Amino acid sequence: MDSTARFDDDFRRHFRELLIWRRDVRRFLTTPLPDGLLEDLLKLASLAPSVGLSEPWRFVRVETPDVRDRITAEFESANADALAGLSGDRAALYARLKLAGLREAPVHLAVFTDRGTGKGHGLGRQTMPETLDYSVVAAIHTLWLAARTVGVGLGWVSILDPARVTRILEVPECWSLTAYLCLGYPEEEMDFPELERAGWEKRAGAELSILAR
Amino acid sequence: MDSTARFDDDFRRHFRELLIWRRDVRRFLTTPLPDGLLEDLLKLASLAPSVGLSEPWRFVRVETPDVRDRITAEFESANADALAGLSGDRAALYARLKLAGLREAPVHLAVFTDRGTGKGHGLGRQTMPETLDYSVVAAIHTLWLAARTVGVGLGWVSILDPARVTRILEVPECWSLTAYLCLGYPEEEMDFPELERAGWEKRAGAELSILAR
Repeated sequence: MDSTARFDDDFRRHFRELLIWRRDVRRFLTTPLPDGLLEDLLKLASLAPSVGLSEPWRFVRVETPDVRDRITAEFESANADALAGLSGDRAALYARLKLAGLREAPVHLAVFTDRGTGKGHGLGRQTMPETLDYSVVAAIHTLWLAARTVGVGLGWVSILDPARVTRILEVPECWSLTAYLCLGYPEEEMDFPELERAGWEKRAGAELSILAR
Repeated sequence: MDSTARFDDDFRRHFRELLIWRRDVRRFLTTPLPDGLLEDLLKLASLAPSVGLSEPWRFVRVETPDVRDRITAEFESANADALAGLSGDRAALYARLKLAGLREAPVHLAVFTDRGTGKGHGLGRQTMPETLDYSVVAAIHTLWLAARTVGVGLGWVSILDPARVTRILEVPECWSLTAYLCLGYPEEEMDFPELERAGWEKRAGAELSILAR
């Protein structure tokens, strides 16, 4: 069976809806995820493409209250620095944004790239070594979409100093932090980005331009 | 309607199948894509998450035969360098791999990150500026999955010197090459990676481990 037969219009319509409703979630309910769900989602994430089949993704679930508190404090400090770099209306707008759900989200997940992996035997990453990190991003994006299909939301917290977070989590030397994620059930469902609703930025959407060479 | 109601078991089963059948395609039919299909797929790709809603993805369709030939020559040169770095059985195995479908694929698409974009007002990328590139990777991965739902395959060619490719394509100074892609209908459908079939590397699959902190 070829993939045209495998996926029908109804699937494609729902797939489009999945992309539209994905969201970067910052407002979570504290309701825990059912046992085993995170593991199931990470198995789906592990079907992501990886350069040379290197599968360099490494997952760390952060559960200890003290460790979560230290990460949250790191976010608050980095966020205060970001705010200090702004002025006027932009600063006022920034101060009103909710940029992470670290205190409420039932799951904190740090995702690392294992830069020391021998898996894949280096194939495809001589000229563009960054494809190792990109493979991990593809796994994160797969996790994001898979979570959404079961009603779970994901928020990517990038307002963190990666060196400091890595030190707090005590992972092997060759692991590089790719993302710090919150997962949980969202407080509300939205079909447009929270940053758009808050007046921070607009989607370009239909303005897509494709250069020809 | 919440997203649990929005997506049912049948959708989730097909979504899993989409991840399993995705593939990095290197063997393409020369059949062109229908008019407008690439644009439709890129509109879906543009629904990807981006840091601060920066939408930094820039697409360049490479159609001029001379330009495509120059890119193909770049791949062949980088691939010969990669082979020269191997020895013994690994070298023999590498030499037998087909690692790109640049000569056959009807569509060549270079994808850049616009590092100079003001969109998003820098939000979320002070401490982890690489999230700008990661946003583009999420768009590429979205394109990959969307293409698959209509039977189109995608191959990511990373065996290329990004500086040289960028020079050939004459794009704005602040655009950084994130990926060079081939798109077209695949010669065959497979539910496991070509690198696995060729004996290069095995999927870790169920060996997934999650650290706790």
